[in-house]
Amino acid sequence: MIKKFRLGNPINTESVVKDIPIEEGNLEGFSFDSEKLSFKKFINPKTVIYGLGETTRGINKRGFVYKSFCSDDPNHDEDKQSLYGAQNFFIIDDGNKAAGYYFDFPGIITFDMGFTELNTVEITLSYGDADIYLVTGESKTSIVKQFRELIGQSYIPPKWAFGYGQSRWSYFTSDEVREVYAKYKEAGIPLEMIYLDIDYMERYKDFTISKEAFPDFEELVSDMAKENVHLVPIIDAGVKIEKDYDVYEEGVKNNYFCKKDNGEDLVAAVWPGQSHLPDFLNKETREWFGNRYKFLIDKGIDGFWNDMNEPAIFYTKDHLEEVFEKVNDYRGKNLDVDSFFEFTGMFYSISNNMEDYRRFYHNMDGKKINHEKVHNLYGYNMTRAAGEAFERISPDKRILMFSRSSYVGMHRYGGIWTGDNKSWWSHLLLNVQQLPALNMCGFMYVGADTGGFGSHASKDLMLRWLAVSMFTPLFRNHAAKGTRRQELYEFGDSKDFKELIKLRYALIPYLYSEYMKAVKNNDMMFKPLSFEYSDSRVNEIEDELLVGESIMIAPVTKQNATGRYVYLPEDMKLIRFRGPKNYDEEILEKGDHYVKAETNEVLVFIRPGHELPLAEAAMSVEEIDYSTIRYLSYKADGVKYDMYDDDGVSRN
Amino acid sequence: MIKKFRLGNPINTESVVKDIPIEEGNLEGFSFDSEKLSFKKFINPKTVIYGLGETTRGINKRGFVYKSFCSDDPNHDEDKQSLYGAQNFFIIDDGNKAAGYYFDFPGIITFDMGFTELNTVEITLSYGDADIYLVTGESKTSIVKQFRELIGQSYIPPKWAFGYGQSRWSYFTSDEVREVYAKYKEAGIPLEMIYLDIDYMERYKDFTISKEAFPDFEELVSDMAKENVHLVPIIDAGVKIEKDYDVYEEGVKNNYFCKKDNGEDLVAAVWPGQSHLPDFLNKETREWFGNRYKFLIDKGIDGFWNDMNEPAIFYTKDHLEEVFEKVNDYRGKNLDVDSFFEFTGMFYSISNNMEDYRRFYHNMDGKKINHEKVHNLYGYNMTRAAGEAFERISPDKRILMFSRSSYVGMHRYGGIWTGDNKSWWSHLLLNVQQLPALNMCGFMYVGADTGGFGSHASKDLMLRWLAVSMFTPLFRNHAAKGTRRQELYEFGDSKDFKELIKLRYALIPYLYSEYMKAVKNNDMMFKPLSFEYSDSRVNEIEDELLVGESIMIAPVTKQNATGRYVYLPEDMKLIRFRGPKNYDEEILEKGDHYVKAETNEVLVFIRPGHELPLAEAAMSVEEIDYSTIRYLSYKADGVKYDMYDDDGVSRN
Repeated sequence: MIKKFRLGNPINTESVVKDIPIEEGNLEGFSFDSEKLSFKKFINPKTVIYGLGETTRGINKRGFVYKSFCSDDPNHDEDKQSLYGAQNFFIIDDGNKAAGYYFDFPGIITFDMGFTELNTVEITLSYGDADIYLVTGESKTSIVKQFRELIGQSYIPPKWAFGYGQSRWSYFTSDEVREVYAKYKEAGIPLEMIYLDIDYMERYKDFTISKEAFPDFEELVSDMAKENVHLVPIIDAGVKIEKDYDVYEEGVKNNYFCKKDNGEDLVAAVWPGQSHLPDFLNKETREWFGNRYKFLIDKGIDGFWNDMNEPAIFYTKDHLEEVFEKVNDYRGKNLDVDSFFEFTGMFYSISNNMEDYRRFYHNMDGKKINHEKVHNLYGYNMTRAAGEAFERISPDKRILMFSRSSYVGMHRYGGIWTGDNKSWWSHLLLNVQQLPALNMCGFMYVGADTGGFGSHASKDLMLRWLAVSMFTPLFRNHAAKGTRRQELYEFGDSKDFKELIKLRYALIPYLYSEYMKAVKNNDMMFKPLSFEYSDSRVNEIEDELLVGESIMIAPVTKQNATGRYVYLPEDMKLIRFRGPKNYDEEILEKGDHYVKAETNEVLVFIRPGHELPLAEAAMSVEEIDYSTIRYLSYKADGVKYDMYDDDGVSRN
Repeated sequence: MIKKFRLGNPINTESVVKDIPIEEGNLEGFSFDSEKLSFKKFINPKTVIYGLGETTRGINKRGFVYKSFCSDDPNHDEDKQSLYGAQNFFIIDDGNKAAGYYFDFPGIITFDMGFTELNTVEITLSYGDADIYLVTGESKTSIVKQFRELIGQSYIPPKWAFGYGQSRWSYFTSDEVREVYAKYKEAGIPLEMIYLDIDYMERYKDFTISKEAFPDFEELVSDMAKENVHLVPIIDAGVKIEKDYDVYEEGVKNNYFCKKDNGEDLVAAVWPGQSHLPDFLNKETREWFGNRYKFLIDKGIDGFWNDMNEPAIFYTKDHLEEVFEKVNDYRGKNLDVDSFFEFTGMFYSISNNMEDYRRFYHNMDGKKINHEKVHNLYGYNMTRAAGEAFERISPDKRILMFSRSSYVGMHRYGGIWTGDNKSWWSHLLLNVQQLPALNMCGFMYVGADTGGFGSHASKDLMLRWLAVSMFTPLFRNHAAKGTRRQELYEFGDSKDFKELIKLRYALIPYLYSEYMKAVKNNDMMFKPLSFEYSDSRVNEIEDELLVGESIMIAPVTKQNATGRYVYLPEDMKLIRFRGPKNYDEEILEKGDHYVKAETNEVLVFIRPGHELPLAEAAMSVEEIDYSTIRYLSYKADGVKYDMYDDDGVSRN
């Protein structure tokens, strides 16, 4: 059951698709402080909190303060309160009863989940207009299902988007792209996508192609397509200010960009320097910007990633000038601890500055709204612009689309990747822990930058990360400029990598089937154990996940470990994979086990009464031969796996 | 057996105390590349590497690149290659044979421990002068013992320094110090030290006391002493440039400060702004600076902590001026991705700038030596200055001394704390993992900022951290300006805290005894399991430690966990402590166990054939009554614990 409570006069975020009558009074179960705009609730020592989508920390969100404020900041350490997305749905499960809460609020909202006081949840809004939904049901799964029905069906990518993709900031030339393909081919490792980061554009201008670097762009696209390899270019939020650049000129002329209070277009710098930010909260801007993707679709492109749409702002022209004006006040003085850190602080805070986010406005259906109040809708509406356009431009064929920034509602138009992570073992574990929370909030086509975007990856980290990402719908290896090359042929002998990527392809019939069923049934593809089991241990299991109906995974996320502890909530069959045809099987009893797993091994546990379909490996999704599927199973006499499949491209 | 190899003409760091003849040829077991100045060795897949003192990552140092370059940078994430200390001793254990290596080299040295190539160790020097010691022996423990004999007996603090101390940056006034004491007393929690951070000084000037903030300093010291509470002030490396400040005037007059190439004293800013850095590598400076501690000892002070001695440099006057000169070149331009990050990079790199470390020189026995070459000796020699002075000033009574920066050799003059950590669960685990590595390198009086220095601490983190720090000789709760108060009375009900601190006091007879025996026998107080057991599992145990001869600890380092897996290499008796008199016992068999541990519980495992002495709790070390000691034991018939004790103050 869903109840809706309203505070003030909320902005319509269009994140929900159902009309629910508004209840009288305050949100049930919480006390409300109208001065602090905060909602408080006592939680008992055993209460577990789930959800909040793309956030830091564990599956249990308890014990930290999270802040929804979409942020471009790559240093995700234990202090990090805001990542790239804002997904304000969570479940509080006190052991006897669970309830889901969705704060449909596009501004800054903080969730003190038992940090300041161990036994108190306190949620604070930055202003007093919000719709709040209370979702109750028999189980956590039923709560999620109802919430997902409320927000509408999740995005479905083309089936080829379940293949393995290689990315880097950047492949700078057409030749470099061809080389990446050739080296994968030489190594015998399947490759389905090559991603183009910002340098394919002419001076970082959206919907342009660098003539020097990619003189043969269309030929490249079609050559790759013949090999079943899709080129997936990036699209950035900011539009370069440059006379005669048509996107810029059209945007200015038609008032498509975000404006300052005085009516001038805001000058906010990103990659190309001074730029304007399209006002994606304006329907006309969305339509205009969305149509622009046709430029690339016409060249054979059928997938995109939307970036920098928190929006990231390196600096605004106005604020930078303020800094320049202040700098010289510090010159020639004895700067001590106070004045020195004040001085350097000016520079540390130039990018993504809060005052800059208050400096501009949107035009939402004719209303002028300060950006800060609707900050978390920006990336959502950029991707919505694309998603809505794709339905017009490509009515018959799905287009791959995923975004960095997000808000609930965006899940209908695309997936997300979990942003600029690092080659850290802790981020590998974080990757695992984020997956069920993303699913709860409707984000189904998800995955992390495998191997880590920032920092240098080692071979063992890459192997362990592949053993996780091979289960995520989005499976992309991506790395930043200046980091060690991490294409899978770059670590010496690539045999183990080849076997793991082949295993991914052998699992695609299962993964695609489970993905599609989860989308259509408003279910989760990745579940914490506690969503299906209820013994005393499962609430604390933070590094095992149920993936679809048949299997549980338990990845190794620690360096130098050749095994790990696994808790089994019931008897299961362990498959220790070293490749699609190389594995051993062992039946393990309910309870605790120490299980060996070398760096080339993937632990999969088949649940009793279930089958895991496994095809022969193929070099592309298209080439997967379903007639080769065999079934690994455990106690599954008379059970038949319910396989979903379709043509992989038609819109559903 | 120890063999010494020499490269070039090394600087004498005085880190070793024994004369070993120099072998012919290159370091045994490594290939040497004289162009890259790198030493390479193949390691097999099962090889484990131990040591390197205060570094990041696990007990097994394999899989990362470490760099010895003492650094003041509080953001210790997974990328961090250099912390505050430089302790270039490590053991490579290939399963059949272990060998220890000590690179006595005071400049930048990198240890690629199987990161770039999984099966290769590569050690690279920044210049070609070094003494390298190869230590072989029957066991890892014997290798450590020989190395420790080589470098001389570790520092012994006064016994009261095993009490519990409270610190904060800062207690700003005498009244605030008295209030902290009063609140601990009111809560019934033992307290042995209160630390004074930089604000007790007059404008951050070493060897001064703020007359406004601490008008009754001597009275405060003696009032606290009556309650068995020691005030422990900080001493910083930098000396404020201020006319008529005697320390400054004497230092300039006698050429005690580090100089630039042109002979002028370097101007390097820290807390007070522009300062000079005492040239601690100069014997005369050491004697002069060391004698200065008498100013505080005469006021009743008997303990100090030396800080900022990497040395930390906020900025140098020369470099800051260079930055100011460049700033305006960027004004009025369209800064794009390249020029903008170049611009902000100028400011990010002002502090602890490598070029600044090359900008000044030391006078070592009349030789002018560039700082970069001997950087890692700076903190060592600051603390040596103090330690040598204490022997003169206080020949009969031990003085508490610990330092932030360090190098092997400094262990003879003081302990260390592990620097500016954070209130992160990962840093709690890191704390555990650093302890044996520090002991290997001679650092015995060690401990972390309990609860975390930076970031905000939650009550559960604080409880879990106490359960680790209660075993470390240095047991200090310390937090930074701007963070949540973390005195133990600041988290609501303090009953659990009281029980844990009382447990510490009950354990002090054991901890002091084990500390002293380890120091005198050149043994480790904290050992990885693999130092005493040799089954197939112990090499990968990263979160259990042997503490002294009788016990193993297995702390919970994960949030929201009420239990953990424990591997027992033999049968042991679990004592689950909730306080010195509140515990339960259980005998557990060799092997894997899932063991419950609520946030107020401490897991201690008694090894077979051993006794753990436990006294009645006391409010101070002096008040511990050894006649109340009872012995918890396991299979210890006929065994008698070998208790070391002494008067706790006399120098040994």
